[in-house]
Amino acid sequence: MPGAPVEARQLLTNHMAKADLLATTENAQLKTGATIGILGGGQLGRMLAMAAARLGMQTIIYDPAADCPAAQTANRQITADFDDESNLREFARLSDVITYEFENIPLETVEIVGVDAPVKPGISALQISQDRLVEKEFISGLDIATAPFAPVESVEKLQEHLAEFGDKAILKTRRFGYDGKGQILINSPQEAAVGFESLQPNLLIVEGFIDFELEISAIATRGADGNFVCYDPAWNRHADGILRHSTVPAPVADEILKEATTIARKILEALDYIGVMGVELFVARSGELIVNEIAPRVHNSGHWTETACTVSQFENHIRAICGYPLGSGERHANCEMQNLIGDDINQLDAILAEKDAFIHLYGKTEARPGRKMGHVNWLSPLK
Amino acid sequence: MPGAPVEARQLLTNHMAKADLLATTENAQLKTGATIGILGGGQLGRMLAMAAARLGMQTIIYDPAADCPAAQTANRQITADFDDESNLREFARLSDVITYEFENIPLETVEIVGVDAPVKPGISALQISQDRLVEKEFISGLDIATAPFAPVESVEKLQEHLAEFGDKAILKTRRFGYDGKGQILINSPQEAAVGFESLQPNLLIVEGFIDFELEISAIATRGADGNFVCYDPAWNRHADGILRHSTVPAPVADEILKEATTIARKILEALDYIGVMGVELFVARSGELIVNEIAPRVHNSGHWTETACTVSQFENHIRAICGYPLGSGERHANCEMQNLIGDDINQLDAILAEKDAFIHLYGKTEARPGRKMGHVNWLSPLK
Repeated sequence: MPGAPVEARQLLTNHMAKADLLATTENAQLKTGATIGILGGGQLGRMLAMAAARLGMQTIIYDPAADCPAAQTANRQITADFDDESNLREFARLSDVITYEFENIPLETVEIVGVDAPVKPGISALQISQDRLVEKEFISGLDIATAPFAPVESVEKLQEHLAEFGDKAILKTRRFGYDGKGQILINSPQEAAVGFESLQPNLLIVEGFIDFELEISAIATRGADGNFVCYDPAWNRHADGILRHSTVPAPVADEILKEATTIARKILEALDYIGVMGVELFVARSGELIVNEIAPRVHNSGHWTETACTVSQFENHIRAICGYPLGSGERHANCEMQNLIGDDINQLDAILAEKDAFIHLYGKTEARPGRKMGHVNWLSPLK
Repeated sequence: MPGAPVEARQLLTNHMAKADLLATTENAQLKTGATIGILGGGQLGRMLAMAAARLGMQTIIYDPAADCPAAQTANRQITADFDDESNLREFARLSDVITYEFENIPLETVEIVGVDAPVKPGISALQISQDRLVEKEFISGLDIATAPFAPVESVEKLQEHLAEFGDKAILKTRRFGYDGKGQILINSPQEAAVGFESLQPNLLIVEGFIDFELEISAIATRGADGNFVCYDPAWNRHADGILRHSTVPAPVADEILKEATTIARKILEALDYIGVMGVELFVARSGELIVNEIAPRVHNSGHWTETACTVSQFENHIRAICGYPLGSGERHANCEMQNLIGDDINQLDAILAEKDAFIHLYGKTEARPGRKMGHVNWLSPLK
């Protein structure tokens, strides 16, 4: 990765450990009936497990919560914490390949399991996406546009950057942010001071506010053979920081969608990535594309592929990590995806009565506010 | 069922036991997270379990074989024989509704589980389809065309019927036939004698040979609310008595397809049926439709619905037995389904490389001759 800035490059080298080496040297095709270990047992793991089953693979889920969503459709689960070395090694010994379904999994966990089984995608993508600063440095090091950004070590520095970015910025924790958590919009030096205080003692990053037209995401896959497949980018709308709607086709010019795919490809190739990655991009009012963040896993904004494509993002991820040729990323329909979040699940009866809605629930018993309970896909004919 | 002949009517009455009463009186809608018990753990159970999971249901598989295909994608399995009363009752106590995935399940098994949970579809459809004679009497009692048929108790009677049917007939065991097993084509009195001997000591039926143009099947669903949904009938081709290809649309005039749907509806309504039934029909060279057999379950010739419809036969079966409104039976594409039987699985690499094939394998480790290992669906645009 010659283009990466010093800090990112150094971190990458440190972590180019056994797991990554195994991942890049053991790209032989797995046999039908092989076992895929999945770190994390949420809905993404659940859909990966079903896709793996359809390809004749066995799955084993590693998650601290018994009877988690993924375990319900998998062959078995190891219920243990992510720092439980003995269970992690047992999990790895039972797995022919290991993948993960969320990016905040501890790197140490991946290093432990990587001793006994290849981990795909490798640890470097995980390490980059776990820290917003490293991520931004990596992306901009590839000459891809990002929001202006800077690490924040003091209120004074933050206020300086705020002025530099035009008095509107977002202060974020560098680590463990998801679904809009750990983010504060700041519009003034006073808000900067309050925001800085409220996010202590976390490491912070400040990003210039992007006045974007809309957000799209490219769900991109790279196979063990280096082949690249990208689904049509979806148009995403959030509510309370949580993805609510994704629509294909996105109401954006074709050349912009094509450029989004090119950007995604550059990122996956720079990482020698194997599997599916979600690349979120802002379409600025100027038409410029700005990468917001990357998620080294199947992505909520790709759930529409389950219904509108013959080969879904879940299957393509499984194909990639098994060393199989990738399936097509083409869609046979337009699609609108809506998440069912918290109380949305109470609309289930009405959605069932629609007759043409594709429903996917996650097997979660309690509908807490903000909790993703399922999603619905609606198809419409290609124009 | 006023039209049914005496023997069928009497058998039905005998078996209109607890299970059926529960099935017809307890049609309330199940809550998300309820448990569906599935008798039988093959690929049909596997696909039912996945469809149930997507609707937020739990599943429990009852099958004598540990780690059977269905258990791999279900919440849990009870591994026990179908005459193990204590395990059957435990299974029923854990289930909010029970269904079955093959029609040769012992009636006694269904009666035992029916004490503690509703069984849908009810026991009567099972009992009818388990005996080719009862089935034929039931169908023809509804004024629906079947092949000419007669029970066979001696070689002499068989030879008489053979002459009556035009010297070409099929001698079949009344019970436990599937995939062409327990069937002999007879063309002469001599073959009749040899055939009769070879199928002893089974109860037998002889059916006149139908010189049909092609075979189609209607995958029909009836909801707890009496609503009826039928997928477009598929054109089916067999090899060695095993279904190999199903194609939609079938190359048959629209009015014939419509008539097939009307016939299926008549059958399901006569049984007050809840769930999916496969109705196999011959299209005679005259254009006449002749019911070959019925299967009171999801059906191999409906696997194309998994890819070409928003709501598959598996989901519609689950919707029906849960008391949910049925999903649409409309397809958004044309489809060709091919079973992967025995060694066909060796073509997997080539099929994976096609990029546009939807692959569904069943998690079976050993590819024995004649064993269904998976299937492939190919979509093409609606004309």
